[in-house]
Order: sequence, then C-alpha cells, then structure tokens
Amino acid sequence: MHDGVINFIQDLAVIMLIAGVVTVLFHRLKQPVVLGYIVAGILIGPHTPPFELIKDEHTIKILAELGVIFLMFSLGLEFSLKKLVKVGATAFIAASLEIVLMIWAGYQIGLWLGWTNNLDALFLGALLAVSSTTIIIKALNDLKMKNERFAQLIFGVLIVEDILGIGLIALLSGIAISGTVNSSDVFITVGKLSLFMVVALVLGILLVPRILAYVAKSNSDEMLLVTVLGLCFGFCLLVVKLEYSMVLGAFLIGAIMAESRELMKIERLIEPIRDMFSAIFFVAIGLLLDPHIMLDYAFPIIIISIVVIAGKVFSCALGAMIAGNDGKTSLKVGMGLSQIGEFSFIIASLGMSYKVVSDFLYPIAVAVSAITTLTTPYLIRASDPLARALGRITPGPLARMVALYQDWLGQLQLQGGNAILAGMIRRIIIQIAINMSIVIAIFLGSTYIAHFTGSWLENWIKDVDYQKSIIWGTTVLLSLPFLIAAYRKFKALSMLLAEMSVRESVTGRYTQQVRRVISEIIPLLFLTATMFTLAALSAGILPKGLSLLLVIAIIFAIIIVLRRWFVRIHSRLQIALYETMDHGNNEEHH
Amino acid sequence: MHDGVINFIQDLAVIMLIAGVVTVLFHRLKQPVVLGYIVAGILIGPHTPPFELIKDEHTIKILAELGVIFLMFSLGLEFSLKKLVKVGATAFIAASLEIVLMIWAGYQIGLWLGWTNNLDALFLGALLAVSSTTIIIKALNDLKMKNERFAQLIFGVLIVEDILGIGLIALLSGIAISGTVNSSDVFITVGKLSLFMVVALVLGILLVPRILAYVAKSNSDEMLLVTVLGLCFGFCLLVVKLEYSMVLGAFLIGAIMAESRELMKIERLIEPIRDMFSAIFFVAIGLLLDPHIMLDYAFPIIIISIVVIAGKVFSCALGAMIAGNDGKTSLKVGMGLSQIGEFSFIIASLGMSYKVVSDFLYPIAVAVSAITTLTTPYLIRASDPLARALGRITPGPLARMVALYQDWLGQLQLQGGNAILAGMIRRIIIQIAINMSIVIAIFLGSTYIAHFTGSWLENWIKDVDYQKSIIWGTTVLLSLPFLIAAYRKFKALSMLLAEMSVRESVTGRYTQQVRRVISEIIPLLFLTATMFTLAALSAGILPKGLSLLLVIAIIFAIIIVLRRWFVRIHSRLQIALYETMDHGNNEEHH
Repeated sequence: MHDGVINFIQDLAVIMLIAGVVTVLFHRLKQPVVLGYIVAGILIGPHTPPFELIKDEHTIKILAELGVIFLMFSLGLEFSLKKLVKVGATAFIAASLEIVLMIWAGYQIGLWLGWTNNLDALFLGALLAVSSTTIIIKALNDLKMKNERFAQLIFGVLIVEDILGIGLIALLSGIAISGTVNSSDVFITVGKLSLFMVVALVLGILLVPRILAYVAKSNSDEMLLVTVLGLCFGFCLLVVKLEYSMVLGAFLIGAIMAESRELMKIERLIEPIRDMFSAIFFVAIGLLLDPHIMLDYAFPIIIISIVVIAGKVFSCALGAMIAGNDGKTSLKVGMGLSQIGEFSFIIASLGMSYKVVSDFLYPIAVAVSAITTLTTPYLIRASDPLARALGRITPGPLARMVALYQDWLGQLQLQGGNAILAGMIRRIIIQIAINMSIVIAIFLGSTYIAHFTGSWLENWIKDVDYQKSIIWGTTVLLSLPFLIAAYRKFKALSMLLAEMSVRESVTGRYTQQVRRVISEIIPLLFLTATMFTLAALSAGILPKGLSLLLVIAIIFAIIIVLRRWFVRIHSRLQIALYETMDHGNNEEHH
Repeated sequence: MHDGVINFIQDLAVIMLIAGVVTVLFHRLKQPVVLGYIVAGILIGPHTPPFELIKDEHTIKILAELGVIFLMFSLGLEFSLKKLVKVGATAFIAASLEIVLMIWAGYQIGLWLGWTNNLDALFLGALLAVSSTTIIIKALNDLKMKNERFAQLIFGVLIVEDILGIGLIALLSGIAISGTVNSSDVFITVGKLSLFMVVALVLGILLVPRILAYVAKSNSDEMLLVTVLGLCFGFCLLVVKLEYSMVLGAFLIGAIMAESRELMKIERLIEPIRDMFSAIFFVAIGLLLDPHIMLDYAFPIIIISIVVIAGKVFSCALGAMIAGNDGKTSLKVGMGLSQIGEFSFIIASLGMSYKVVSDFLYPIAVAVSAITTLTTPYLIRASDPLARALGRITPGPLARMVALYQDWLGQLQLQGGNAILAGMIRRIIIQIAINMSIVIAIFLGSTYIAHFTGSWLENWIKDVDYQKSIIWGTTVLLSLPFLIAAYRKFKALSMLLAEMSVRESVTGRYTQQVRRVISEIIPLLFLTATMFTLAALSAGILPKGLSLLLVIAIIFAIIIVLRRWFVRIHSRLQIALYETMDHGNNEEHH
C-alpha cells in the first residue's frame, strides 16, 4: 500500500474517532451533533495542541465539498413544490422579510464595526439571513413540539428560506466574480437564474423520475444508488459549467428526484453517505478555526449574536403577524427561527474559496452559530411566558390596531366563485411563464451551441446566411410546441379577463363583440411582443433579408399543417409532468 | 469553487454515469454488475478512445482503496465464527485442497509460460486460489438454488476461503517486502499472524460491541455510523502500523462487529457507502486495463481460464467427497466454485502496489475472471447431467472403493460419551490456546512498548536493572489472569487424559495415585516450558540476577495472596466474551 492511502486512512480514522467521541459527549450534554463535529475539528486542527493531525489536506477538503453537495442534495430531496404551495403566504412573507432585514442588518453592522472590505459586510449580511434547518428540527424534536401549528409554519419558512438562500448563493457568486453590485446585473442574474431553475425543474421532472423508475425495476439497490449518484454529480457538473454554484445544482437535482416514486428508497440509500461526508464537512469547518481569532473577535461575535436573535425574532414574528397569525404563534415562529447554521458555513466558505472575504469572517460565523444554537431551545420554551408578558404590557390602541388588521385581512380573502376564478388565473399565468421560460431557454441554448456547430456546418454549407437559416429555423421549430401552448393559454386568459372586466351593464348588446375583440387583440399583442423578444434573443443566429422571410414562410406553413400535432406533443409532455408529480406525492403519503 | 473540486466532481460524474448505463445494460443481458463496472472503467480509461476522461487520478485511486476496505469490511460483517463451526469438515477440507492445488497450478503455469519473474508466477497462483463470493451469490440467486444443500456447503467453503485468502494476502505482503520465500519466515509470519488475529478478535469482541451498544443507545444513526467508521479506519490504521495489510484489518474489524447487537443496523448503514466506493474500485480496475494487452495475452488467458475451471471443479469436488458427501453434491460444489473474482483483483493490485509483478498480470486476472464468471451459471446447470454421465462411465471398482470409503468414514465418527468427551477436550485446548496467545501478546507488546518508555522511565529511575524489573514485573502481573487460567485448564485437561489413558485393569489399586501423579506432573511440565518461553520472549526486558529473583519472589507472593482475585477477573472476562457472542447470534436469528 502506498503512503498516500495510509495518510488518507489515518486522516479519516482521526476525524471519525474524535468526531465519534465528541459527538457522543455532546449528545449526553444534550447539545446538537453539528457543534460536536466542529469542536472535534478544532481539537484536530492545526491551531490547537498537540500537533497537526491531518496529513492529506487536499483530499479531506475535496471530501468536505462532497459533504456540502450531499447536504444540499438531501435538503432538495425533502423539498416539495406542493408542500410549499400549502404553507403559502405566511412562509413567503416571513422568510422574505427576515432575509431582507438580516442582510441589511448584517451589512450595517459590518460597516459600523469599521470593516474596510465592503464584501465582508455583504457576506456577513448574507450569512445571517438563513436559519438552520437541522438545528431547528433537532430542537423541536427534543422539545416534542414537531406537530404543533407554529412548527408547521416554521418548516414552511425554512423551505422558502432555502430557495431564497440558493438564489442568494448564486447572486453572491456573481458578485464575487465581477466584484461589484450592479442593480441591472442583479436583475439579469436573477432573471437568468429563475429561467434556468424553471427549465431545469420541468425537464428534470420529465426525465429523471422515468430514468430512476427504469433502473429501479432491476430491484438492485446498488444500481439505483450508482444512477442517483451519477445524475447528482452529472447535474452538479452541468450547473458548474453554466457558472452557477454546485450547491444550487445539488439542491435542484434533489428537488427533481423528490418527485420520483423511489424517493423513500433514495433517501434511505443517501442518508449514510450524507452523514459520512457531512461529518467530514463540519469537522473541516472546525479545522479552519483558530480559537485565538474567536477570542480576538469576541466583541463583534457577541454583538452579531444579539442582532441575529433580536432581528430574526422581530422579522419572522412580524412577517407571521402580517400574514394573519395571532401574536403567540407569531412569536413562537420568530423564536424558533432565531439562529444560523449550515447555510451560513456554506456562504462563508463560498467567500473564502473566491478569496473575497477576510479570514475572520469564518470563525465569526461559526461562533455566532454556536451561540445562537445553544440559545434556540431556551427561546422556544420562553416564548409562551413572553407572549403572555407582551400581551399584558401591549398598549390598548396597538392591540386594537392588530385586531382590526386581522379582521380586514379576513375580509380580503377571496371566497366562492371568485376564489376559484383567481385560482384558474394563477394557474394559467404559471403555465404561460413555464412555457415561455422553456422557449427562451431553447433560443439561448441554440445561440450558445451555434458557436460550436458553426465551424462544423461550414464543411457542408458555405454560405453563412444559409447556416443561420438552418440553425434559427430548427430553433423555432423546437420551441413551437411551447410557443403554441403559451399562445393558447394566453388566449384563454384573455377570454377570462374579458369576461370579468367587460360587464354587460356597461357595453349592453355589444358585450359579446367587445369581449371577442379584447380576447383576440391581447394574444396578438403578446405574440408580437414575443416575436421581437425572440428576435433580440437570437440576434447571433438570425438570418438576414430574404433568407429570414423564407424561413418564416416555411415555419408558418409548418404551423398551419402540423398545428394539431404540436398541440398533441405539448399536452402529452404536460400530462407526463403532472403524472410524475402526482406519483411522487402519492408515494410520500404511504 | 476551486478547480480541484470541479475536476473531482467531473471524475465522479463520469464514473457514476457511465457505470450506471453499463451496469443497467449488463443487468438486462443478465450479466453480473461487477463486469459492467469493469467494462465502464475500460470505456472511461486512457487506453480507449475518445480521450482520457479522468482528471484527478490521485483522489480516485484513494477512493478505490476505500472501496477495497469497505468490501472486506462487509465481508467481515457477514462472517460468523459459529456458522464456520457448523459447516465444519467439508468446508475446511475442500477449501484447503482447492487453495493449495490452485496456487501450485498457477505457479506451474507461470513457469511453463516462460515468465522470468518468479513472483509473477506466485501471484498468479495466489490470485487463482480464491473463488468469488459476490459472483456465486449472484448466480445462485438467479438460478434460485440458494437454499439447496450444495449451496450451503459452497457458502461454508467460501468462508474458509476468505480466512485462508486473508492469510495469503498477509503472506504475499511479507514476501513482496522481503522479496524471498523462506520456509522459516513463512512459519514465523503465519504464527505471528495467527497470534495477532486471535488476540485482536478476543479483545475486539470484548470491547467493540460494548462501545457500539453504548453509542446506539442515543438512537442516532448518524453517531453510530461515525463511530463504526472511526473504529473501522482506526483499526485498519493499527493493522498497517503493525505491517499487516489494511485489507486484513478491515475484515477483522468487520468480523468483530459481526458479534455486535447492532449488526443489522450497521449493515444497512454501511451498504450504500460500500456500494459507492466499491463501484469506484471496480471502475478503477477497468481504468488500468489496456485491451491491447488482453489481446496480446489471449493464449495465456484461455489456458489459465481452463485451468481455473478444471482445477477448481476437481479440487473442490474431491475435497467435498473426502469429507463424506455423495458424488452429485460434490460435483455441484466444485462447479459452483469454479471462478475467480474480487479477491483476485485485490491480490493483483497488491502485487502492483508493491511493484513486484509485471503489468500483464492485472489484465490477465480481469480477463480470466470475466470468462469464468460467464461460465459459472452454465456449469452449475450442467452439473446434474454431468453427474449422471459420470456415474454411468465410472468403472465398477472405483465406485465400490468410494462406497467403502464413505462407510469407513461413517464408522469413524465418535458416538455417545466419547463424542462428548472429545468435544470437551477440543474446547479446553481452544481455551488454552486463546489464553496463551493473549499472554504471548502481552509479553511481545511489553517488549515493544519498552523501547519507548525506557527513556521516559530514566527520569525517575536511573538503574537499568530496576527499570527492567518494573517493566517485566508489570508485564507478568498483567498476564497472570490468563496464565493462571491456562494452567487451570491444563490441569483439567491432564485429569481428563489421565482418566482416559490409565485403565484400572492395568494399574490395579494404584490407579488413583498414578492418575494423580500424571495430572500433577503434566501441568508442572507445561508451567516450566511456559516459563522458559516467556523468558525467551521477554529477553529484552528481563532483569538480571538478584533483581530477577526479587521480582519473581514478589510475584509468587502476589499469586498466593491474590490467586482467587485473578481467577475471578478472568472468569468475568470470559463470561463477558461468551455473552457478547451469544447476543450477536441471537440478533441474527430474529
């Protein structure tokens, strides 16, 4: 056996043995396992006696990255689009309010502490934004409160936080590379990211569960595992090549596999692998920590911890109240979410790996996470007495205002036929957005691919305009099923809107005509706008003059002849998508 | 994210994706998954177009070694001392005969093929010796023959093969380091190895299941997994530091954990991790393969494949018949065992990593394994018709001889009181051997440790003889419980033997006296021999002259005063050991 392997086995032995002892100790002291790992890392690490125990740091670091991937992947597996819709408003309002407020607060603290690097302050804000799923689940489990209403709300907030956090990571990566924050850049980045996520989810949910179902037929856990790992790493790689974060890829492919019938099996197979690598990840965090730096930064650490607790309790409780929950529940939601955890470490290591943040940020994040983790269970337990105390000292007028707001909110809810109509409209808008996302993705993809096929096509067709005609024509043809579907949905939407907005009492006997005009004109406007957008998107591959006209003519001919076929293709895809998502969900309820 | 991680993820993605596709294909073609991995490795590898797909070979190789460790570890988990005792004679005779014959045959073929490097021939012999557990289990599963009698015999043979194979690996490592085969070296190596294995098993079974039970109380799969991994890697590291193979360590710690109550849980947790890394291991084998070399060596590959099939069928069938099985069953046992697999790859990579074998050995091993794997199911199915055909053409005298032999064997079996007596004697001898192994291990360990404590002791005690007195005295005290136990067992054994050998018809009224003399003298002789052996073993730490006498006097005084206490300590340890092994077994039957 060569020395490399022995060094590596020694590293693993040291990590696992010390992690084992420390976590068992922490478990006896009723502290979370994650903290145990980090402490084990500090003990093993180079900053504490007796000596540097880790020999092959390169390999350990790579395995720690695998830990992040598996952590995000299983977070994705637990994610569910349907669950998200159910918790709805509360989760979205509370999470958004929390994230915006915490980023702002973190940034301000950074400036106030006199940090000269703006990105330090920005990353501080970002890493205070997202609460820790693992620590909350652990605390609620220990307190046996997992099934109470506030706990369900907390889980909803955590799901939304995960999505926003993933977006945040993508955004921070962009900022780290370009070095500046530019509002139009942010807009483009977010737009591209949403586009990518929608397309990846739709295509993924169409393809991946089918592949997994095929492999699962073999009844071999081993083959299923290898396929799952292959798809996971493969997708992460694709995402990295598109210059997004690997973490995003792992989460997305997890969310896609969450719609598979084999979800339970996959979770069972992935769990030990995730536990092994995430242990290495958390220990590796400890390895990086210098306790001296923590002591040097004791003051900022205490300030930031106070801000995290106060800011999160305030923003989440306020968000929950705005969404219509009573004061006690809202306070419990806020108390439960008042800590930071694994997401913060991921964001801090992101900053480290891009070398855009200072060395002290990481130990600060870990120390604040440790402190706020320790306080979480006490805060949750304190929320009932606190709510009573707050109820007693709240001034009368304020209490009345809150009651009034909740009444008003109750009246605002749509009821009966209107609620159904609103549901239909929302559904149609989502469908149009998804179809248009796919169309845009096809055009962007074609332009990208055209860079490579261009030189290859030259062997066959000399004329550049002909080349472009072929590429552009193919692109339009590929996107036709989705374009036509979007157009049809848009027409349906226009009819609905015409029906609602044009009242017979105003237009009298012309009602039908007015409605028809509206429901014809709006889709045509949409079509024209789409044409121009697509033309702009495909500027690189758009043929000129006569060729363009010729291609458009051919496409129109094809549309007229094959219209029904395109519609059929699309509806088949749509049915397949719904079926998959329903299967995934049925499995979950078993 | 830095490039190292991206390259690594790319490697994993390529390995898992291609392995997934190829294994699904192989599964459809009803071929074993292992072959699929190897073919995937060849496709990915540098010797086939389009290009070298693996970028971070260092890390992949290390993960492949982890694959070997996890493979052997789970083989250990499935191993059971009790099961081994049950299948008994057949397994032991067939496996020994097979291994000796195949090593000899392989070595002879190597010489006959004109290989100039003797070690090539030796390693060829070794890698033909052990059959493949995974391939056999797969084939018997497919043929739905897992519960037939010959299948049970095959599993027994496989267990013995695993043990002998592990010994073989240790031996080959020694030869690879020293470069020569020396019969006294072999004897010492095997002796030391057995000593190490016995001591490790006894101490391990006393300690490890208790640790695991303690951790399992937390009801956290994660902590149990981390502890299991820590113990596994830690033990592998210890074994490597003692200059044995890591593979041996992984198998032993697996066998130790097999006696734990948590066996089922551990197997469930380890399985996905093993599958992930063993996939990498088998793909890495394919990576090393150059198809051109396989073509160049087509002739040796065919010859060796024929020898493997013919040699294994002959030796295993003969072994099974010698142990008293009928011809048909024996033939089926032989047919089932006629292939090579994962053990051969491990032995071949052992030779490669020590750089003592030629490059062609690996591809030959893989090709022969592939061919013999493909033939295994056909051979098992052909064994019934073949047995009938052989029965018809066997000459009468030979058939009568076989029948005669089986009758004689039946008479040889001990019955009634004699069988019980033989069982008691065997049990006492095993207990004496285990206790003496521990005593010898304590003395060897002390001598080893004395190298390091010597300089430390010098700060306190200047006189070298005093130092030695203390070290040697402590050593003897530590070994006293086991020494006294061995002495008592030996006394019991002598009494039994005296009872059996001295018949009243010969010695008449002196019978009691003669028996007492014999049962007193033999243990004294044993004690004296033990003293001299221990003195020789502890030559390095044995004090001289007066100090020695003083130490011995003190020890005698201690023995006289604390004799009962030592006996109690030992019986407590013994009870703990039995209890653990019974627990492990009870769990298994649930």
